[in-house]
Amino acid sequence: MSRFIKKVSKTAGLIPGSLVYVGDKTQIKSKITVIDYDQDNFTEKTIENIEDLFPFKDSPTVTWINIDGINDASLIEKIGNHFNIHHLILEDILNTAQRPKFEEFDNFIFIVLKMLYYNKTEEEVQSEQVSFIIVSNCVISFQEKVGDVFDPIRERIRNAKGRIRKTKADYLLYGLLDCIIDTYFLILENLGEKIELMEEDLVTKPTPEKLKQIQSLKSDMIFLRKSVWPLREIISGLERMESGLINESTFIYLRDLYDHTIQVIDSIESLRDMTSGMLDIYISSISNKMNEVMKVLTIIATIFIPLTFIAGIYGMNFNPEVSRFNMPELNWRYGYFGVWVVMIIVALVMVIYFKRKKWM
Amino acid sequence: MSRFIKKVSKTAGLIPGSLVYVGDKTQIKSKITVIDYDQDNFTEKTIENIEDLFPFKDSPTVTWINIDGINDASLIEKIGNHFNIHHLILEDILNTAQRPKFEEFDNFIFIVLKMLYYNKTEEEVQSEQVSFIIVSNCVISFQEKVGDVFDPIRERIRNAKGRIRKTKADYLLYGLLDCIIDTYFLILENLGEKIELMEEDLVTKPTPEKLKQIQSLKSDMIFLRKSVWPLREIISGLERMESGLINESTFIYLRDLYDHTIQVIDSIESLRDMTSGMLDIYISSISNKMNEVMKVLTIIATIFIPLTFIAGIYGMNFNPEVSRFNMPELNWRYGYFGVWVVMIIVALVMVIYFKRKKWM
Amino acid sequence: MSRFIKKVSKTAGLIPGSLVYVGDKTQIKSKITVIDYDQDNFTEKTIENIEDLFPFKDSPTVTWINIDGINDASLIEKIGNHFNIHHLILEDILNTAQRPKFEEFDNFIFIVLKMLYYNKTEEEVQSEQVSFIIVSNCVISFQEKVGDVFDPIRERIRNAKGRIRKTKADYLLYGLLDCIIDTYFLILENLGEKIELMEEDLVTKPTPEKLKQIQSLKSDMIFLRKSVWPLREIISGLERMESGLINESTFIYLRDLYDHTIQVIDSIESLRDMTSGMLDIYISSISNKMNEVMKVLTIIATIFIPLTFIAGIYGMNFNPEVSRFNMPELNWRYGYFGVWVVMIIVALVMVIYFKRKKWM
Amino acid sequence: MSRFIKKVSKTAGLIPGSLVYVGDKTQIKSKITVIDYDQDNFTEKTIENIEDLFPFKDSPTVTWINIDGINDASLIEKIGNHFNIHHLILEDILNTAQRPKFEEFDNFIFIVLKMLYYNKTEEEVQSEQVSFIIVSNCVISFQEKVGDVFDPIRERIRNAKGRIRKTKADYLLYGLLDCIIDTYFLILENLGEKIELMEEDLVTKPTPEKLKQIQSLKSDMIFLRKSVWPLREIISGLERMESGLINESTFIYLRDLYDHTIQVIDSIESLRDMTSGMLDIYISSISNKMNEVMKVLTIIATIFIPLTFIAGIYGMNFNPEVSRFNMPELNWRYGYFGVWVVMIIVALVMVIYFKRKKWM
Amino acid sequence: MSRFIKKVSKTAGLIPGSLVYVGDKTQIKSKITVIDYDQDNFTEKTIENIEDLFPFKDSPTVTWINIDGINDASLIEKIGNHFNIHHLILEDILNTAQRPKFEEFDNFIFIVLKMLYYNKTEEEVQSEQVSFIIVSNCVISFQEKVGDVFDPIRERIRNAKGRIRKTKADYLLYGLLDCIIDTYFLILENLGEKIELMEEDLVTKPTPEKLKQIQSLKSDMIFLRKSVWPLREIISGLERMESGLINESTFIYLRDLYDHTIQVIDSIESLRDMTSGMLDIYISSISNKMNEVMKVLTIIATIFIPLTFIAGIYGMNFNPEVSRFNMPELNWRYGYFGVWVVMIIVALVMVIYFKRKKWM
Repeated sequence: MSRFIKKVSKTAGLIPGSLVYVGDKTQIKSKITVIDYDQDNFTEKTIENIEDLFPFKDSPTVTWINIDGINDASLIEKIGNHFNIHHLILEDILNTAQRPKFEEFDNFIFIVLKMLYYNKTEEEVQSEQVSFIIVSNCVISFQEKVGDVFDPIRERIRNAKGRIRKTKADYLLYGLLDCIIDTYFLILENLGEKIELMEEDLVTKPTPEKLKQIQSLKSDMIFLRKSVWPLREIISGLERMESGLINESTFIYLRDLYDHTIQVIDSIESLRDMTSGMLDIYISSISNKMNEVMKVLTIIATIFIPLTFIAGIYGMNFNPEVSRFNMPELNWRYGYFGVWVVMIIVALVMVIYFKRKKWM
Repeated sequence: MSRFIKKVSKTAGLIPGSLVYVGDKTQIKSKITVIDYDQDNFTEKTIENIEDLFPFKDSPTVTWINIDGINDASLIEKIGNHFNIHHLILEDILNTAQRPKFEEFDNFIFIVLKMLYYNKTEEEVQSEQVSFIIVSNCVISFQEKVGDVFDPIRERIRNAKGRIRKTKADYLLYGLLDCIIDTYFLILENLGEKIELMEEDLVTKPTPEKLKQIQSLKSDMIFLRKSVWPLREIISGLERMESGLINESTFIYLRDLYDHTIQVIDSIESLRDMTSGMLDIYISSISNKMNEVMKVLTIIATIFIPLTFIAGIYGMNFNPEVSRFNMPELNWRYGYFGVWVVMIIVALVMVIYFKRKKWM
Repeated sequence: MSRFIKKVSKTAGLIPGSLVYVGDKTQIKSKITVIDYDQDNFTEKTIENIEDLFPFKDSPTVTWINIDGINDASLIEKIGNHFNIHHLILEDILNTAQRPKFEEFDNFIFIVLKMLYYNKTEEEVQSEQVSFIIVSNCVISFQEKVGDVFDPIRERIRNAKGRIRKTKADYLLYGLLDCIIDTYFLILENLGEKIELMEEDLVTKPTPEKLKQIQSLKSDMIFLRKSVWPLREIISGLERMESGLINESTFIYLRDLYDHTIQVIDSIESLRDMTSGMLDIYISSISNKMNEVMKVLTIIATIFIPLTFIAGIYGMNFNPEVSRFNMPELNWRYGYFGVWVVMIIVALVMVIYFKRKKWM
Repeated sequence: MSRFIKKVSKTAGLIPGSLVYVGDKTQIKSKITVIDYDQDNFTEKTIENIEDLFPFKDSPTVTWINIDGINDASLIEKIGNHFNIHHLILEDILNTAQRPKFEEFDNFIFIVLKMLYYNKTEEEVQSEQVSFIIVSNCVISFQEKVGDVFDPIRERIRNAKGRIRKTKADYLLYGLLDCIIDTYFLILENLGEKIELMEEDLVTKPTPEKLKQIQSLKSDMIFLRKSVWPLREIISGLERMESGLINESTFIYLRDLYDHTIQVIDSIESLRDMTSGMLDIYISSISNKMNEVMKVLTIIATIFIPLTFIAGIYGMNFNPEVSRFNMPELNWRYGYFGVWVVMIIVALVMVIYFKRKKWM
Repeated sequence: MSRFIKKVSKTAGLIPGSLVYVGDKTQIKSKITVIDYDQDNFTEKTIENIEDLFPFKDSPTVTWINIDGINDASLIEKIGNHFNIHHLILEDILNTAQRPKFEEFDNFIFIVLKMLYYNKTEEEVQSEQVSFIIVSNCVISFQEKVGDVFDPIRERIRNAKGRIRKTKADYLLYGLLDCIIDTYFLILENLGEKIELMEEDLVTKPTPEKLKQIQSLKSDMIFLRKSVWPLREIISGLERMESGLINESTFIYLRDLYDHTIQVIDSIESLRDMTSGMLDIYISSISNKMNEVMKVLTIIATIFIPLTFIAGIYGMNFNPEVSRFNMPELNWRYGYFGVWVVMIIVALVMVIYFKRKKWM
């Protein structure tokens, strides 16, 4: 649940634009890395002093500033002041309960979205918020934690593979978004396999644990949907942008990204459709099991109850000496034998009846 | 239910624009407070005589007139007349069963929405209607009861914190709306936690009380949705306004408010999705319990019924003296022992059968 | 059901524009009343001869012609001819299975909608069709039966209360529509209370009668929805009208009416949401009851079946004289006492087991 | 099912525009009738030779050519060639699995829709495809089988009743469409009554046959919906047409038709809403029945099982001669009497318990 | 499941535009066939050397290049380079998890869709991705496997049947799309029949295997829907195209194709509606069965349990010699006879009770 509704109580009632970090309480020291490149040159370094960042702002090269750990509000504020970012946007960066969104300003673009992980131990989809600010030649990315999915991009920049070193900040942004959306497919694969396994098990082994798994699967789907749907608006927002921040040659890549997003959304909807019926399958399976249990009880009970009754009859102590009407069968020569015959016939009739009812 | 359909019978058939208070019957004496400020000055006072309000109308300072308790229709009428408010709008203010809405007139804006509380004792979301009229430099707020969520704003005005003392009535309006929407997040947090607890309990302890809780949760979600959805139109209405009442510099704050509203709506939909499946989970859990009960009954019954039958057989009183065919087993040396052996074998076969069926 | 699909077989295949009354078969003599007024004068009379109506058409005063009982097609035709109404519209007036709608013509407006009643004896929402024709200064209303919800309007005209005597036919129309929509709120109140009662009962007393009540409630909601939804189009149609029939000063009243309609629709949707889950609650409650029944059966049966088996054992007649192995317990000194001890232990074990399972 | 998916395998892979009849295999000899009229003249004849049709094409009179039976592809082709109809349209006429649609060409209009029947013996809604081609003054109608719903139109033309003889082909088309839509109301009436009966029965007699009826009802609703929904587009398509084929005076009639279509669709949706809950009502009713069965079993079993146990106790053969502790009750003076007292007390306690539980 | 979410992990993190085949791992040697024709000439050949393809690019004749097997990325790249296709499009061709889509470029059109098969052995709908590139006079089709549904087109080209040899590449494209959509109808037929069979069986034989079949049917419907829905956009995209690649005379054929697509979608929705209720029918049937089982158990148990109790009574060993109150019945002359009478009466009362309850 905590995935859905983050603790926002601490910000309620504050001055709008107050910079308060909303997220996990663990204090992570922010780590700032800078990758600066153009077609010929390439620098990569970790920065300790925030002022070291500022020269990159106006350099003609492409600069990617990555900040891991955003619980130090003053740091974010300094960066925001230098790059001339509105306070409300800085508040959005710190509020990790943000809905994915895209905002365009005169001098910069702001994008916030969710990086998703499939946590194998908790069998749950988890998320980390990533915010991007694109301002002149810089892409500034803010992440909640150390560790991300951008290594392929870093490799490509370092090794000058592909088009990336020949292009501007907009292509870098595309590359980063592409990395994030690629991981969505991995999560869908994981969930898909889980659903596949579940579906087979549901019919044959409807244990109560399955109920919990269905619940967690549904909650995963809701979470995924909430995280991914707004992406469509974000990317089509980028496509419709008219400021010079996005070059025309990048549009075909954004188009491709858009297609991928639609594909992800499509798959989520398909998986949702599959999971939505699971509970009914589960209930059906339990009903089936119950039915089977009931049949066994019914068969055993209905065969033996009449037989026990017959045995009970001849266990009565009516006094044969008083009258020859009192239980004369007890003195018949083949009385006992006869009772067995009657019992076997009764049992057989029952068995045949159940066979015809297809209960056995 | 009374949250959904207020008693409106008293107004039915009245002249349109009739000022009749629709709400709780408890008579609350209206309390009027005025906060008047500009960058340098600040006045705050409680007003007894309605005429004392009127000078504020045309002063250049920003004035916030807050009225707690609206069951005195004549008071509302006087204010309405002075500020030149249409009678239908005054009727809307008094009708606390109003749907949240936004209306723009030549000389003023009218906004009505719901302040929400989570009543911990009744475990229910409750609401109080707040109406705003923004006319020239004044914000007039009408509340059903004393007590609200605006204290942070009052503090900021008193202490000249943030931008508020430097801005006009439109920013004050934004601040008040922001306070209200902030509390929505708190309610979502409360509901989120409740749902989280419920979900875990549902599988393990499906008691009939849970049914009532699910019902109340659903009704909360419906109520919340009804109260919050129209907010989207209200705020985008404010954003689209062209009259001079809203300054351009306030638009970014309204945009932020709009994002928050979307986020609230999004979260409500997620919670709705989570609650919608709860009843099915509940039914599944009950079925599981029933299944377990049935299994115990079946196991005990199907093991002992045949055994009791066997015991019954040898309780019959067929006379062995009449014929050697009558119950010769009774006179066998190991008859009793043999019966026990047979019984134990029958019981073991049953137990093995149930083990293989996974019922034990 | 008859509320949903009226008998229309009689009109099938007729010439379009054929005037055939579709509705209850009871023949009601049409009753025509005229209220004619301007700011200073007021006339109210019942009219026997249809020709007496015609002078009102071109008088400068506002005229409200009300016709109760529309099964006399020739009467409707005469009125139609005089006021120059298209035959297809007259057919619509007579066809009481009409969907609420609004039509604008060069010289007149046609509105048809449903007046709703809550029939307390049949516990059902019922409807009566009302058609309005607004032509120059006249409002002509056609009702199926005597008796309506317009008395407050009549009072206001008679007593010159409110704005009505100072305004034109468009305000009269607004007033009539307002009366009708006001009654919708009353019905929602009634249904709301019924739902509230039901909800509490469902969990504790899921009797089969409740099933019927849920069904009737659902059917009420469907009927209400069908009758009210089209109203939105009607009123926004009136608002968008450009002919001179609606004065500008009336638009704010129509806006208010529109808000009320939205509010009614909103409430219907909320009530629908509440009723939609009722059947599931009902099924859950029955499952709970069943579970309780099963538990009692299981407890009694599983405690006594083994005990009865033990008693059965010692009711066997193995001959102790043949062998000392045959039922030696019968001759033990404390045999009987021992059996009781064993039985009580077995019973206690069972009880403890059930206590731990929380079945007792 | 065959109502939904017609056998189209035979056309798969053919040249587009190939004229192959898709429908029932029964070979019906096509029957061509022509009705030709203007205000003063009227001719009606059956035509054997297709060439006899051609003169009507350019006559100034209105001509209605009706073809019953369309499995003779060559005949359709000849007509198509003469009236200059595109091959793809001819293919559509022959393909009776067509979705209702409207197409406008330079020289003609093509409309295809479904004539619906309620087959009382199979208790199922059935359909026949009707195609219309309107070209200059001719309406050509193609029907699958002899027998239709157009007799009222024929009567009106023959007897010059109503406006029909004074109007053009567009009014004839309207008349034919009106006849078809009128029959939809008859079907809704039939289904409505069936649903009404079902609803009452479901609660009291939930037999397995009801399941089949619910299934067939649902399938009827789906079929009806699929056949009727596209009509809305067809008629609004006709209304929006700008070619001279539709006269302005006919628009009001099309408007009326459109209203009827909306009314049909509305009613279908209401009926769908009613049927959608039926299965749940059915399941609830079965649960109720089961509950009743279980209660009887529980009452009988829980009363008699303890009693039988007590009787079993005193059927044990412990030897009272060995010890005075062995079943001394057997030798008590009022032992037997006492046992009866105990038994009656046990039974009464049970009965009181069940009474309090409201099970009896 | 693997139908829904293809393994895309291998492409995650690659440079955008990387050509990696995503699909079945089986290595198929690509097979390239060329059909080149105009009204008078016709050539068909299999090509080994990719360079042999290039002359066709600029020839005035229509050329259809078909590539079966696309796991040789270098081959695709060569073709792409020669025909000047963007790398991202080539990536799309190789990624067989593509969502059906249509893209228009300056010099070519790209279409990707799914060819569907009904695999009778696995009783499952399966798909193969087909991509089309239309560039000047060439249609290039890429298929995953050898074997397709285009043979009718090949036949028509070879034999100059229909319009195809007289038309351009756009008509060829239409023909190929038409073939694919035709097969959708075949699949709907298959599924329709399967559903029809299922529906009848569900009520009478609700076996657990049916659950699996319902599941697979639902998954088929979801898969079908996902594959077919985007087609609508593709074809309406083609219709709206303004480049000269599509001739005006082809538009009517595209319109026809569009209608077929709508028809397919319509049918899928109808089938979905039919399947959606199946699980409820299944659960109802199981409940019915259970009810029947319970009734048999109840009847047998409630008849014999009281009888067994009576027999138990007279099996007690109270000593008649101690007191004349102890079981005097045992010494009555007609005691045994009387017990039988009592038992038969008890049994009859039960039977009559059950008959009246309609349980027998």
